[in-house]
Amino acid sequence: MNCPFCLLNSNEHAFASSRNFLAVYDISPMLPGHSLIIPREHIESLHELDQEKLAEFFLFARKVTKGLCEMLDTDAFDWSIQEKEEAGQSVSHLHMHIIPRTKNDLPNPGDWYPLLMKNKKQTMIDSANRPRFTDTEFLAMTQRLRKKFHP
Amino acid sequence: MNCPFCLLNSNEHAFASSRNFLAVYDISPMLPGHSLIIPREHIESLHELDQEKLAEFFLFARKVTKGLCEMLDTDAFDWSIQEKEEAGQSVSHLHMHIIPRTKNDLPNPGDWYPLLMKNKKQTMIDSANRPRFTDTEFLAMTQRLRKKFHP
Repeated sequence: MNCPFCLLNSNEHAFASSRNFLAVYDISPMLPGHSLIIPREHIESLHELDQEKLAEFFLFARKVTKGLCEMLDTDAFDWSIQEKEEAGQSVSHLHMHIIPRTKNDLPNPGDWYPLLMKNKKQTMIDSANRPRFTDTEFLAMTQRLRKKFHP
Repeated sequence: MNCPFCLLNSNEHAFASSRNFLAVYDISPMLPGHSLIIPREHIESLHELDQEKLAEFFLFARKVTKGLCEMLDTDAFDWSIQEKEEAGQSVSHLHMHIIPRTKNDLPNPGDWYPLLMKNKKQTMIDSANRPRFTDTEFLAMTQRLRKKFHP
């Protein structure tokens, strides 16, 4: 399948998980806290989720958002889903971006999206435009977040 | 309260509705089909919804997305929620943007977001940057969509 999101697993990469979803820190975070909610299964479309899983997706995403925002002492966030390439989706495996926001984190509040798109032109593995975590940094962040979500 | 979204009602403005949510065509659509999902109650935050309403929100949003995409003969879409001003939210009443996407509708798939932000610098009532529907045009679109959603 060659899908980078199918290689993720809860033990190594996720900082929180629910029955069917993982919360993973973005490997090239555009802002502190930038994370992804990703189904464990290779699901391409929101429409493939049954009602129960759809509810689980957003309930889990909200819980993760709350934790990330608490860590960053804010209550502001952006959620974004792109479905299909025409909509800006790069990896064809359903995922939602959660981006906690803080006052003046960007010159204009709306600037996060062009940054995300710039980011996504690179592959997940080789993001040249924004600082990409080393494996060590990624692991350290994931472990720090695990303590927040599984104290 | 002076909240423009509190003035919306299912009879006049919505093209589809669920128990607690309305689907309303964006008064200044950035692309064909651009619509909003808005709770009937004045709720500011996703965190205020109980689990049942949270599930209803996204189930209803998905149903509306499916209908809009069918009308436009596409399966691509963007979903976006901004929570709080720091995140780019303009009207402090929870709402989600649904933007159906089609191939080459914009020079770059990611261009929709800067357009949205440009749009939101105007008030809902006076959007000078993008063509704003007249009341007649808005009503015509809403009635057309109602036929799709309530055939």
